[in-house]
Amino acid sequence: MPKTILITGARGRIGSALVSHLDTLDERYDLRLADLDAVDKREIELDITNLAACRDAFKDVDTVIHLAGVPSPEAPFEAILPVNIGGTYNVFRAASDAGVSRVVFASSAQAIEGYPLDVQVRTDMPVRPKNLYGVSKACGEAFAAYFAYQEGVEAVAVRIGAFEQASDWQRMSERDLSAWVDPQDLCELFVRCIEADLREEPFAIVHGISDNRFKRLDLSDSRARLGYEPKADSFSVWRVGLYNASEPA
Amino acid sequence: MPKTILITGARGRIGSALVSHLDTLDERYDLRLADLDAVDKREIELDITNLAACRDAFKDVDTVIHLAGVPSPEAPFEAILPVNIGGTYNVFRAASDAGVSRVVFASSAQAIEGYPLDVQVRTDMPVRPKNLYGVSKACGEAFAAYFAYQEGVEAVAVRIGAFEQASDWQRMSERDLSAWVDPQDLCELFVRCIEADLREEPFAIVHGISDNRFKRLDLSDSRARLGYEPKADSFSVWRVGLYNASEPA
Repeated sequence: MPKTILITGARGRIGSALVSHLDTLDERYDLRLADLDAVDKREIELDITNLAACRDAFKDVDTVIHLAGVPSPEAPFEAILPVNIGGTYNVFRAASDAGVSRVVFASSAQAIEGYPLDVQVRTDMPVRPKNLYGVSKACGEAFAAYFAYQEGVEAVAVRIGAFEQASDWQRMSERDLSAWVDPQDLCELFVRCIEADLREEPFAIVHGISDNRFKRLDLSDSRARLGYEPKADSFSVWRVGLYNASEPA
Repeated sequence: MPKTILITGARGRIGSALVSHLDTLDERYDLRLADLDAVDKREIELDITNLAACRDAFKDVDTVIHLAGVPSPEAPFEAILPVNIGGTYNVFRAASDAGVSRVVFASSAQAIEGYPLDVQVRTDMPVRPKNLYGVSKACGEAFAAYFAYQEGVEAVAVRIGAFEQASDWQRMSERDLSAWVDPQDLCELFVRCIEADLREEPFAIVHGISDNRFKRLDLSDSRARLGYEPKADSFSVWRVGLYNASEPA
């Protein structure tokens, strides 16, 4: 039987890309797409600030991929608290109560972005958020560790880097280049988060960036624990883009 | 001029001990004692879930010692969220807005208590909370890192161990013994948190336990960054207690 996967925030930027990717995989998964409003048949309405609604939605689900949240690093804390912290608690609480086996949590590179810019951050270092959004993601990682080790819900927290199409290389800053994640690489990383064997160790923090020549976030754990094999490299994308841009028209 | 120190949760278990200790120091500090209700002259009413009230209370304060919070590791998350997370945000936000130089935050050993019991935890390891109270303390540490590095409010997060009088040694479990903090040691640690020079590095996580023969939490950073010199050792307290208890009456 195919695994039942519920995605929160399925209509968001990353959610849409992930759903398109999973749809190419020959119906390997039974997908439930949750977001604040439902448009097509596969979608269900879910407000993660409603714990009872999360419990209902998670019945008979194997894995929850939790992408829903206030996505802006600049959002005021009053907006972040109920959704990114309260809502993430609800997602884990409901997953535990409903017998969900695994939660894959969309954390963010913002959880560690306060380190000096020339430091390569490893997953075994303490968090150092750059902003209050990053604080909320650090808090989500703490929920994940709690529910994995204390309540038996396997959990992977993916610190997602700068999610941009390669064609948008001109929008990327130096920091973004070193933290870039190609959408295709990230989608494949999420599949590995669903499939990885976590029986020995029920929790992982992994970094979600591409195979960039210079890396803000170390990929050792993503490779070792999940078998992640990123393909893209922002620096070659950038170099080729610059070269083409400098050619006479 | 003496430093102005505001203590939140001043009437709590640790707050009361700390105030008594600071009162022995020849009026070295100008104290403002904040709690939900004010009883004597030095006390002010402050509900940390009220951001505007925090801003008012923090005017002309040099250092805030933030002890207020739901103290029970077993508290339901609905009780913890607004006070330990929302309230701690308010304390840091108001401190930053009011120009407070430093916040000393009462974190807890519960933030790392999910590690296997024979692991000695260092401050450079990721959090692993044992309960939702511990998650809220981990979140408080993330606030502290954010406000220290990004908004210039110096911050020390003290992971407080098992705070018990030595005379209550019979109440202590094996875990408590290795995480015990004698009230006198903890009070002296708080003074060092007020006095330490943090100009080179504006943030520290330090462990607040005594000089126990076996330590659940490593004290290297407490000693190196603050000059902490704990005096008590739970294991000798325990041994002496057992010895006396086994003597004929």
